Amino acid sequence: MSSVVQPIIWAADHLQLLDQRLLPQEVRMLACRSAAEVARAIHDMAVRGAPAIGIAAAYGLVLDAQQGRDYQAAEQVLAESRPTAVNLRWALERMRAVAPRSADALLAEAEAIHQEDLAQNLRMGALGAALLPAGAVVLTHCNTGALATGGHGTALGVIRSAHAAGKLKFAYNTETRPWLQGARLTAFELAQEGIPGKLLADGAAAHLMKSEKIDWVIVGADRIAANGDTANKIGTYALALAAKAHGAKFMVVAPSGTFDLHCPDGGHIPIEERSAAELTEFRGAPVAPLGYAAYNPVFDVTPASLIDAIVCEHGVIERPDAAKIAALLG
Amino acid sequence: MSSVVQPIIWAADHLQLLDQRLLPQEVRMLACRSAAEVARAIHDMAVRGAPAIGIAAAYGLVLDAQQGRDYQAAEQVLAESRPTAVNLRWALERMRAVAPRSADALLAEAEAIHQEDLAQNLRMGALGAALLPAGAVVLTHCNTGALATGGHGTALGVIRSAHAAGKLKFAYNTETRPWLQGARLTAFELAQEGIPGKLLADGAAAHLMKSEKIDWVIVGADRIAANGDTANKIGTYALALAAKAHGAKFMVVAPSGTFDLHCPDGGHIPIEERSAAELTEFRGAPVAPLGYAAYNPVFDVTPASLIDAIVCEHGVIERPDAAKIAALLG
Repeated sequence: MSSVVQPIIWAADHLQLLDQRLLPQEVRMLACRSAAEVARAIHDMAVRGAPAIGIAAAYGLVLDAQQGRDYQAAEQVLAESRPTAVNLRWALERMRAVAPRSADALLAEAEAIHQEDLAQNLRMGALGAALLPAGAVVLTHCNTGALATGGHGTALGVIRSAHAAGKLKFAYNTETRPWLQGARLTAFELAQEGIPGKLLADGAAAHLMKSEKIDWVIVGADRIAANGDTANKIGTYALALAAKAHGAKFMVVAPSGTFDLHCPDGGHIPIEERSAAELTEFRGAPVAPLGYAAYNPVFDVTPASLIDAIVCEHGVIERPDAAKIAALLG
Repeated sequence: MSSVVQPIIWAADHLQLLDQRLLPQEVRMLACRSAAEVARAIHDMAVRGAPAIGIAAAYGLVLDAQQGRDYQAAEQVLAESRPTAVNLRWALERMRAVAPRSADALLAEAEAIHQEDLAQNLRMGALGAALLPAGAVVLTHCNTGALATGGHGTALGVIRSAHAAGKLKFAYNTETRPWLQGARLTAFELAQEGIPGKLLADGAAAHLMKSEKIDWVIVGADRIAANGDTANKIGTYALALAAKAHGAKFMVVAPSGTFDLHCPDGGHIPIEERSAAELTEFRGAPVAPLGYAAYNPVFDVTPASLIDAIVCEHGVIERPDAAKIAALLG
């Protein structure tokens, strides 16, 4: 259960973030020395993945506290860096509870958030892997591995744990447009773990499910509403529709910090839209007519009715609804 | 109803093909002087789109006939260039009927195939546009325009005709991984026509349909089985599932040469798989770990049960089945 690489490293007076935009070609660390620099790294997707964003933001607050900068301003710039992931807000709220104390206390809390995330992932990995049949064939989306979290991963953590337990036959993963987190990051982690897998275009997943028995589609989450509706990387909802059509089960794996119990359902989750250039250009080269408009939502919402199980560190919620979620998390 | 560009130009002793791999950055013609060169252009996707492939193949036979090369060999190399598109086989069979005659007779037949395709597209454009409500918002996939056909286009021809008739409000189009025919070619044609539109990632289409009323999803076809099951560009089936979930209607637009009445249903349509490099590299640069495996089917099959209308030049088949198709085409 090794973590492939360390995407977030605290270095006494600054934060080292693995610049995930350059992977898998280049492994380069980005040094951040203020909350604003961490916020920029989050916004620009040098660091991504809902749990990793929360951890990075917590360390960002430590940086400004060490320098005696205004706490409120630091919190605000971090809160505004990505609108959909609720782990970010959850981490900021948790840090606020210790904010009146010293920078050292903030650092201890950030490190606790970081380490607890890894521990939660190992627990979710075991819980999720227990749901899989022997010889499971699974499909995952985006990157939810060690790179997206404090280590091990959420959805990819379940795949890692299932592989370690000898239960996994094969792991397909989507390339995940437009950022190609699947091609660049998940394939990288699967290859490093020696997990047998293949990459496919997002649009090929429905055909895959028709052509071959996929036991489970396993994804992470950026925010889970009180009723179980789940915001995750764009393309997740289409996978859930295809899974339903083909009898593949659908699993969401996310720590309890991903739940937003103040949000009644998916219709209340803000969906971040990013620039057209993410679709009209590729690494700076145009792939569409100059200035062509694009619709670029980064997340979508999968309704709870399409989800067979939500796995968090406290347990498994099968066929999730508001009552079951409140019972486990309330 | 102008054709934006001419992708296939007969030039007396050779064939000029617009190299669609370079669009929209570069408009460069590729000269083909033999059936084998045309077959290579088809296989390598310099020319693509089911009707355009059929037309190019017909001219390819003329080239070898003019040079006195073996007809059977020419036919074979062309037949093997792409396995899924039935228009290719249809065009070769039509040419075979005049093969015993002169190269001039073959040329006349190839030109007839070319011109008839344009005429059919204009007819289908009118028929398909008549199905749309006023102020229609549509979504299309891949490229089915002037670049994919003898002119005007099939699915994109319906969008062109609807725009010309003042019935079209907005046309979304997917980027269409892995070849980005939507981003590179359809956006190019829509922009040239002044049709208001936006590009989106394939995986964002389900979220789009949830967020905004899409009246029709309009796609082309590479092969239509006797029961109406339709093979088209990978990703089409996922769009049909999402359309069904959101009440968007689903239209297939293809000339009668696309029907394969010897093929009882979609399970009998061969699905071409292409190289992993189309997913693991982008313009020669790696976007996944070196040597990572990929599943790269180029087409998928949408069952007739998800199709509201098939439009061909002979008419519209609503809620297609074997009996209705046989009645119109038999």
